[in-house]
Amino acid sequence: MSRRIGILTGGGDAPGLNAVIRAVVKHAVGQKRWQVIGIEDAFNGLLQTPPRLFDLTPRSCQGLLHRGGTMLGTTNRGNPFAWKMPDGTVVDRGAELAARVREEGLEGLIVIGGDGTQDIGWRLMRDHGIPVIGVPKTIDNDLESTDFTFGFWSAVEVATEALDRLHTTAESHDRVMLLEVMGRTAGWIALYAGVAGGADCIAIPELPYDPDRFADKIRMRRARGRHFTLIVVAEGARPKVGERLPSEVAHGQGNIQAGGAAQTLARLLAERMPIESRVTVLGHLQRGGSPTPFDRVLATRFGSAAVDLVEQDGWGNLVRLDNGSITHIPLEQVAGAPRHVSPDHELIQTARSVGIEFGTAS
Amino acid sequence: MSRRIGILTGGGDAPGLNAVIRAVVKHAVGQKRWQVIGIEDAFNGLLQTPPRLFDLTPRSCQGLLHRGGTMLGTTNRGNPFAWKMPDGTVVDRGAELAARVREEGLEGLIVIGGDGTQDIGWRLMRDHGIPVIGVPKTIDNDLESTDFTFGFWSAVEVATEALDRLHTTAESHDRVMLLEVMGRTAGWIALYAGVAGGADCIAIPELPYDPDRFADKIRMRRARGRHFTLIVVAEGARPKVGERLPSEVAHGQGNIQAGGAAQTLARLLAERMPIESRVTVLGHLQRGGSPTPFDRVLATRFGSAAVDLVEQDGWGNLVRLDNGSITHIPLEQVAGAPRHVSPDHELIQTARSVGIEFGTAS
Amino acid sequence: MSRRIGILTGGGDAPGLNAVIRAVVKHAVGQKRWQVIGIEDAFNGLLQTPPRLFDLTPRSCQGLLHRGGTMLGTTNRGNPFAWKMPDGTVVDRGAELAARVREEGLEGLIVIGGDGTQDIGWRLMRDHGIPVIGVPKTIDNDLESTDFTFGFWSAVEVATEALDRLHTTAESHDRVMLLEVMGRTAGWIALYAGVAGGADCIAIPELPYDPDRFADKIRMRRARGRHFTLIVVAEGARPKVGERLPSEVAHGQGNIQAGGAAQTLARLLAERMPIESRVTVLGHLQRGGSPTPFDRVLATRFGSAAVDLVEQDGWGNLVRLDNGSITHIPLEQVAGAPRHVSPDHELIQTARSVGIEFGTAS
Amino acid sequence: MSRRIGILTGGGDAPGLNAVIRAVVKHAVGQKRWQVIGIEDAFNGLLQTPPRLFDLTPRSCQGLLHRGGTMLGTTNRGNPFAWKMPDGTVVDRGAELAARVREEGLEGLIVIGGDGTQDIGWRLMRDHGIPVIGVPKTIDNDLESTDFTFGFWSAVEVATEALDRLHTTAESHDRVMLLEVMGRTAGWIALYAGVAGGADCIAIPELPYDPDRFADKIRMRRARGRHFTLIVVAEGARPKVGERLPSEVAHGQGNIQAGGAAQTLARLLAERMPIESRVTVLGHLQRGGSPTPFDRVLATRFGSAAVDLVEQDGWGNLVRLDNGSITHIPLEQVAGAPRHVSPDHELIQTARSVGIEFGTAS
Repeated sequence: MSRRIGILTGGGDAPGLNAVIRAVVKHAVGQKRWQVIGIEDAFNGLLQTPPRLFDLTPRSCQGLLHRGGTMLGTTNRGNPFAWKMPDGTVVDRGAELAARVREEGLEGLIVIGGDGTQDIGWRLMRDHGIPVIGVPKTIDNDLESTDFTFGFWSAVEVATEALDRLHTTAESHDRVMLLEVMGRTAGWIALYAGVAGGADCIAIPELPYDPDRFADKIRMRRARGRHFTLIVVAEGARPKVGERLPSEVAHGQGNIQAGGAAQTLARLLAERMPIESRVTVLGHLQRGGSPTPFDRVLATRFGSAAVDLVEQDGWGNLVRLDNGSITHIPLEQVAGAPRHVSPDHELIQTARSVGIEFGTAS
Repeated sequence: MSRRIGILTGGGDAPGLNAVIRAVVKHAVGQKRWQVIGIEDAFNGLLQTPPRLFDLTPRSCQGLLHRGGTMLGTTNRGNPFAWKMPDGTVVDRGAELAARVREEGLEGLIVIGGDGTQDIGWRLMRDHGIPVIGVPKTIDNDLESTDFTFGFWSAVEVATEALDRLHTTAESHDRVMLLEVMGRTAGWIALYAGVAGGADCIAIPELPYDPDRFADKIRMRRARGRHFTLIVVAEGARPKVGERLPSEVAHGQGNIQAGGAAQTLARLLAERMPIESRVTVLGHLQRGGSPTPFDRVLATRFGSAAVDLVEQDGWGNLVRLDNGSITHIPLEQVAGAPRHVSPDHELIQTARSVGIEFGTAS
Repeated sequence: MSRRIGILTGGGDAPGLNAVIRAVVKHAVGQKRWQVIGIEDAFNGLLQTPPRLFDLTPRSCQGLLHRGGTMLGTTNRGNPFAWKMPDGTVVDRGAELAARVREEGLEGLIVIGGDGTQDIGWRLMRDHGIPVIGVPKTIDNDLESTDFTFGFWSAVEVATEALDRLHTTAESHDRVMLLEVMGRTAGWIALYAGVAGGADCIAIPELPYDPDRFADKIRMRRARGRHFTLIVVAEGARPKVGERLPSEVAHGQGNIQAGGAAQTLARLLAERMPIESRVTVLGHLQRGGSPTPFDRVLATRFGSAAVDLVEQDGWGNLVRLDNGSITHIPLEQVAGAPRHVSPDHELIQTARSVGIEFGTAS
Repeated sequence: MSRRIGILTGGGDAPGLNAVIRAVVKHAVGQKRWQVIGIEDAFNGLLQTPPRLFDLTPRSCQGLLHRGGTMLGTTNRGNPFAWKMPDGTVVDRGAELAARVREEGLEGLIVIGGDGTQDIGWRLMRDHGIPVIGVPKTIDNDLESTDFTFGFWSAVEVATEALDRLHTTAESHDRVMLLEVMGRTAGWIALYAGVAGGADCIAIPELPYDPDRFADKIRMRRARGRHFTLIVVAEGARPKVGERLPSEVAHGQGNIQAGGAAQTLARLLAERMPIESRVTVLGHLQRGGSPTPFDRVLATRFGSAAVDLVEQDGWGNLVRLDNGSITHIPLEQVAGAPRHVSPDHELIQTARSVGIEFGTAS
């Protein structure tokens, strides 16, 4: 008898989500003749009446490999275990969710998402007996459980292309160009794109910066006849403790706003020297667009491996990339804490060796 | 005896500047064996002591065709005819500039720049007898004197790629995505990129918008099951007269700030309906990067034609594209006023015919 | 009562076909509430039993704007007026085709295609009374009736990117690189891409070349320390009359083969001097991929204008770009002869002025 | 006293060579104030009189990071230990080479190249006492000594983009499209690009194919309404032993020619079924162009690590990527044999799981 499984994508979108879905469908439906049911808008699609489900076939996956986004839609609103009702109360809809999975005849779920989504999946399995297999996803590449996540290199590529472009126009004008990229708590995108795009300075959340060091770097470059400076700023980058924030920013509500981190640094620099600076905030451009070949291959490997796990009744595991090989670990061991850039990470050392300033003593 | 001419680039940079320089050098030096002297940082390079000049040879132009920016540097600071001195006084350095041109043995100048730069060139010729030929440049494509300027299609390409990317991620999330593009007084980039990138709404300076019309468009799309909307906003777009500005923006100093136009529209929409919106501001990404083939060909035609004009002693003219052919007009006839998008422009009609909303009655 | 029209695409595919279809559907269905019926595989879709037709809606056109190819499929096999039967006889199926159009309740057809396809459309109207509106299409840009066809600049972009890449690797190795591009009878792609990509030599069908001139160009470059040469070859380029062809090629059946033109030139050069040469044939890469913004805008204008023509009962016309404006001409006036590159075309002169060799005396 | 080292690039070029050079110079000159001498055209630059050497400075590396090719030039002609003289004799110029290195005051050499180049470096050290550090390079990614080589992912990206384009045009036409990519003895590029680009069939040197299996795949797809098939062919792919080659190909001289492998397969398929096929040969397009961020980062890490090795007197080693970390191994242990795709490689299994046919029993 044919198996019947569900698949959903949760959290922010990342290039490669569609490639995972396609690989699952091609493997499970195309090769094994199972049924794969797509669930729209993460777990929410199961909680709606009627549930928003549809059959996935190889035909419905045509042209999907190179498309960014997710054909299933996604959402980061609404945790089924702490669901906010219109009247403000919070209820646990876990049992309801599990009942729906069973009503729809789904043997189990392939859950593609970040730590938050994986935690929901794991609780659904542990507390309500719904078999779940996880596929890790975060564009920030800050998961402990896997070497790389798909989407990361695609975001780095968008940021690197932006640096290439800013480089050109900066050279023509004697300017300080600041590029703000994603990374609220981990600076991986800023670090990789900064090295790949030839940045002069990089500011990441893990290394609170001293603005004077960046100002010195700009002065040193000018002294050598280089009148432009390129700075990559992760959106979570902050000056070191004790550094007075520029007044306009200090009045903010403390939220991280797009452009806030780069604007802050631009103002701190302007307080120290006469500069003409320009801020560019990439924002959602980093999530859109076609996944790089690296991400397409990785996403395909993840999707195919998830189906293998189903076949081997390996429920309760998360597929991952481990030293270049696809393996898996128990969902309950998936760390909630993000993987940070260590101050002595090899790529930090490499970046320093080619003259990149991080705003801290090395 | 060999001729000896100078070349400079003024104003903001645009993809294709290097391609003009290359064509001038390949034609004048490579074919005609003239001397071409590059002047750094627009007219400023001549006013410094010593002047910042260097010999341009075909070898120095290797690899230049596909590079954005300008190898000569540029600036929009400092009008030689109204030069701000450190003590705040304003002096006319026109005669000094003309003297430098003669001291350097330059027969005349090829001046690549927008209306402001061309005006300086024209005054240098009219008032001080320095022969000048102009090559028009503005990334905004808002010159009356030419069908197209180089750099425009390159900027449209960057904006269109951004729309393709935002489209992908907007589809995954049920969102209103606003993309702010260049265009302070003329909306050409927003119009062309909006049509090319499949925007749902376009806001341009020439058509002050009624926010209710954009809100209605979003509602109509939702009613048809389309839960995302893509809006292109020119940086000079504004709501119609009488429209109350959102308070945060109203407190501003009235300056046009990057992100201001899109932020304003996002807030006006949020006052009218529950939406999750995201603003992306392309900024200098539109100026950087490699020129499109269209712009490389146009820039090469301009550069080559400028040398032909020198040979024919056609000083005092601006080369231009006129109904697809390269011709020229007297510099004194170059209009100072930008070419605006007319409300009944054919492409506005075309855009409306495919369902694009401009925020005004048609 | 709602109107009901058919739409089809004929001949080789070109980037922008989908954008025309989308504009027709968005305008006719989305705005005017007509019915638009897609016909698969050009006229063949009407001649099959059952006919291969389907309803086109704005929803079916989602994501279509930036996709290359044609969602309707196309074919250049089978002229309905001279249909080859399995037994080898040729029959006229024009009346049958017209009957099918009427049976399906189609008021008329929008026919997107090159001169051959337009000729079929015109005969269908003239001889069988089926109302037809034409939209011109050829990637080669060699139609007399329109300034530009969509797809052309996209092909030029692919070829220019290839030249940028070959340039890089040629510089590293002291080589002659030949790039063969499309253009059997007209050299527009080779000419534009050659100028945009900084080619040293261009060979086009309109200018039969003297191999000695290309060999001289290579020698001159070497004498100046430039040890690589980039040559763009249109697939229809040929040596001048009287030039002996290399023996391997001479034994061919006279067919134009992919790579034949570039291989021929490579061998003629190798007979004249010691060179290491590499041939790259772009082939179908020039047809695939996303249309450039220029082509998307032009295709959208064409599609929208075709619907306007239907509304104005302007059947029997071909939409076109005429000095930058969208107009139309009677289908019967559509010239069968391709528009060739004239030897004194301005862009040929421009190319020569920057040192490009065409293999002929100027 | 300042150290003084030489650097050269050997063998075919690969995207990222310039990024290695830049990292070496930025680290050694920019940070450590050493001298770095660039040697042109591999070891040949040392053997010429006068030697072709020049000082490398951070300034000479401006804009180098994103440029393909190598600013030092390269060559695969001429092994100093078996040098072909004009009269046909072969001489050992190793001692002469070593003498030149000493005359120029070079403490040692950083040698960037494939196994052949590394072997020359190693012999120069072992037999003539010249200190050497190796940096591995092959676009084919077939070295035993390192996880990945720079240039590989850039080549995969070019091939994947080509597949995306061919996919589009194949869909419009009912065709079999064959794309020939690099890989004479190892099929890594074909395998990765085939998976990333959604190929239906992949032919690699390691798996001699049965043409009947590919023909069956095409028939199966047609039976499911998919009238096009995309096949990636490594240039070294061959039919299984005993398979009669098509006559035209069989008459060849046994050389591997660009296009030969794909042409052979196209003809073998045409003997089995009526198909319309098109062959595209990417050739040198795979070597040109800007390195991907992955390759830029890897090349920067390699270059920086090579300088670290010099500082630690780690001569005689090859830097490499080993399970994601930069380490090194003795040059004498560098295997001469290429790393082949194993028939049971995980990515082969993954590819099969999503329906890709390799022309062999699994």
